[in-house]
Amino acid sequence: MAGSSIMTAALNEWSARDIAAAVNRGELTCEAVTRACLDRIALRENDVQAWAYYDRDAAIAAAQEFDRRGAAGPLAGVPFGVKDIIDSAEMPTEWGTPIHRGRRPERDAACVALSRKAGGLLLGKTVTTEFANLHPGPTRNPHDLTRTPGGSSSGSAAAVADFMVPVAIGTQTTGSTTRPASFCGIIGYRPTYGDLRLHGVMEASGSVDTLGILARTVDDVALYRDVLLGVSPVAVETLARPPRIGFCRTHSWDGLEASTRDLLEDAAENLARCGAAVRDVEMPPECASLNGAHRTITGFEFARTFTWEIEHHWTEISETLRGGRLADGLSCSPETYYEAKALAEHCRAASDAMMADYDVLLTAAAFGEAPVGWNAFAGVPVFQMWTMLHVPSITLPLFKGPAGMPVGAQLVARRRHDRGLFAVARWVHQRLAS
Amino acid sequence: MAGSSIMTAALNEWSARDIAAAVNRGELTCEAVTRACLDRIALRENDVQAWAYYDRDAAIAAAQEFDRRGAAGPLAGVPFGVKDIIDSAEMPTEWGTPIHRGRRPERDAACVALSRKAGGLLLGKTVTTEFANLHPGPTRNPHDLTRTPGGSSSGSAAAVADFMVPVAIGTQTTGSTTRPASFCGIIGYRPTYGDLRLHGVMEASGSVDTLGILARTVDDVALYRDVLLGVSPVAVETLARPPRIGFCRTHSWDGLEASTRDLLEDAAENLARCGAAVRDVEMPPECASLNGAHRTITGFEFARTFTWEIEHHWTEISETLRGGRLADGLSCSPETYYEAKALAEHCRAASDAMMADYDVLLTAAAFGEAPVGWNAFAGVPVFQMWTMLHVPSITLPLFKGPAGMPVGAQLVARRRHDRGLFAVARWVHQRLAS
Repeated sequence: MAGSSIMTAALNEWSARDIAAAVNRGELTCEAVTRACLDRIALRENDVQAWAYYDRDAAIAAAQEFDRRGAAGPLAGVPFGVKDIIDSAEMPTEWGTPIHRGRRPERDAACVALSRKAGGLLLGKTVTTEFANLHPGPTRNPHDLTRTPGGSSSGSAAAVADFMVPVAIGTQTTGSTTRPASFCGIIGYRPTYGDLRLHGVMEASGSVDTLGILARTVDDVALYRDVLLGVSPVAVETLARPPRIGFCRTHSWDGLEASTRDLLEDAAENLARCGAAVRDVEMPPECASLNGAHRTITGFEFARTFTWEIEHHWTEISETLRGGRLADGLSCSPETYYEAKALAEHCRAASDAMMADYDVLLTAAAFGEAPVGWNAFAGVPVFQMWTMLHVPSITLPLFKGPAGMPVGAQLVARRRHDRGLFAVARWVHQRLAS
Repeated sequence: MAGSSIMTAALNEWSARDIAAAVNRGELTCEAVTRACLDRIALRENDVQAWAYYDRDAAIAAAQEFDRRGAAGPLAGVPFGVKDIIDSAEMPTEWGTPIHRGRRPERDAACVALSRKAGGLLLGKTVTTEFANLHPGPTRNPHDLTRTPGGSSSGSAAAVADFMVPVAIGTQTTGSTTRPASFCGIIGYRPTYGDLRLHGVMEASGSVDTLGILARTVDDVALYRDVLLGVSPVAVETLARPPRIGFCRTHSWDGLEASTRDLLEDAAENLARCGAAVRDVEMPPECASLNGAHRTITGFEFARTFTWEIEHHWTEISETLRGGRLADGLSCSPETYYEAKALAEHCRAASDAMMADYDVLLTAAAFGEAPVGWNAFAGVPVFQMWTMLHVPSITLPLFKGPAGMPVGAQLVARRRHDRGLFAVARWVHQRLAS
């Protein structure tokens, strides 16, 4: 438990760690937490529209059953949501498209089964954009209902930001966890590529797809990552010395809003004042082509993944997707696809060297604040390169932009240094969180 | 068309390329080919047991519909089978386990949809071992019914070897395409990791899973690979000069049967006599640990992938799997898993250098002939290292062992050199096929 101060917060605002600790000690019922989350949803869902599916009565009955048999485990009694491209046994999974309306898998995705095994309670399915691509669902940004929450894990981010659940699972193929975390003012984590199983999760572009975790504390991200990795949770380490941070403006720097550039420059200075060793880092020049390579690879793969839908349901696919990623992919030559994959592999090796002297890199999470208009979140690409490098990434809600909306900062580390990333992220978050 | 000589063969013995060419020219009906394949199945299935599901009447009706509307494309009128861990819209997909008996996906896997888009006719689902692991299905080796066909793509290999279909899709996580191809005397191809989409295919161990293609000619493998890559087929290149071949005995050499070692040594000499530049190649010493790393990674991932089955259906899982890969995986620490992944990544880079001077490496495909007893095919590991390296591999039916059973040889190339691999494979096959 973080301390008794948390006890004054409404139950739906508690962290997953605090909920599980209290449930495991017998001081809190799963039903009480679940009702608090459901009450928040009842109050806000009409505006926020974060959920593709939930069933209040079934959730309360499940929570009561948890309490009867004594829920235990690292997520004991923790309500969680999962993006609606992730299969679950007793709810529909519709991928954000009318083509799969009513689709009902017979089993849980690995990540859902692992969450339940750890004691978590699946509250419902969160809104995804169509096929986890750009065409938006109905979700609004909880900080300003005229603005987008970002996508494609729109509902997962909005639900966590609006205190409907403490944690939710999303996915990332482009910036689908990083971007909505930044826009919604919460923490978003993209794991090292390949670590967390995707069985039962809709494939989009298998060469870059990962799960994503949306949460409100770094400790909850670390806890949930261990649950999804299927290992005993390990507490986030306390740093023995201030971290070595590389400030990486990237080749996309000029595409950021001026205010976001200023916020990041300030953050780098503030971190140095806090004792971090902060130095500017240049990406290797070949990495300038990573955003283009990402577009090539994801387009090519998307247009193969969804062959069945293309062949049988073309007119039910949005024009955004048909004219965008699918058009790109269907016209891409195998040679171009292969060149992009070779470039990505080369840049992964080069980036290992670039990051060797740093615990983390500090970089942008999005081009700026969430735009007005819930259906236009794509904007200037700033995260594709990190997705392509397969590195772990965490987005922290450090700033407020000129309109008072949240703006995140992204920290990335070398592949498989996820635990080290969490330790630095908590250090940074404690010092700079707005 | 390969030549008029093929016309004397029964239709079920034709290659996919010849079938599609004749159908596209209007000289052959899909119905005639389908009936020939079904007749072969009717004659032999009682013994071979290659199929988890097929429906004779539905297949004939589908073929007639193809003929009515004029099937066209690179697989026009070609009947194909797919391993029963690959989803298809109007047939069950049961993963070789009673837990998922009657499971009926609502859509085609990407590879099935791509095959159909190219004009292919899905004849049925081929037998897989339980969850594509070791516990066998009922399939027998068509060359000797007392022997195993190998696994886990048992039915796909047996069906192609027994002339029930010209091509079939399998998968590979360990040696699940390489091994049954060798045991059944056909061609097995494992693509460069990550190239062919796995959407709608049961995940086993995502870090190494790929599709596999089983066929009887190198040209058919190349054709089907282009279909599954979603690109216009390109004919296999004719080599301008004899290939540079590295003969790689690997660290598992002593585990091979003596007769298999002799066959491979002879093949290396014969290829040199045919003009190939053949030289011995040593694997980097660290690659000696790849087989162990493969066991670690696949065990760890398998035990997470199937969390839902472990939690809800433990007693319906075979003891082979429970006491084998799942026990390994559930007791594996995340540190050990990470060490294995780091080793694999290091060896991939090292193997690029090892292969730089060769068009392909020649190596073993299995430890020897298919053993007697249809339920014991695992044997000494000889292919795990190549699976871990993510390299493309093709197994050619070059030899006969002391019992007169087929023994394959494996050729591997650098990642993304699949087309070059095909060109060398055809050159080798033309010179050495038994």
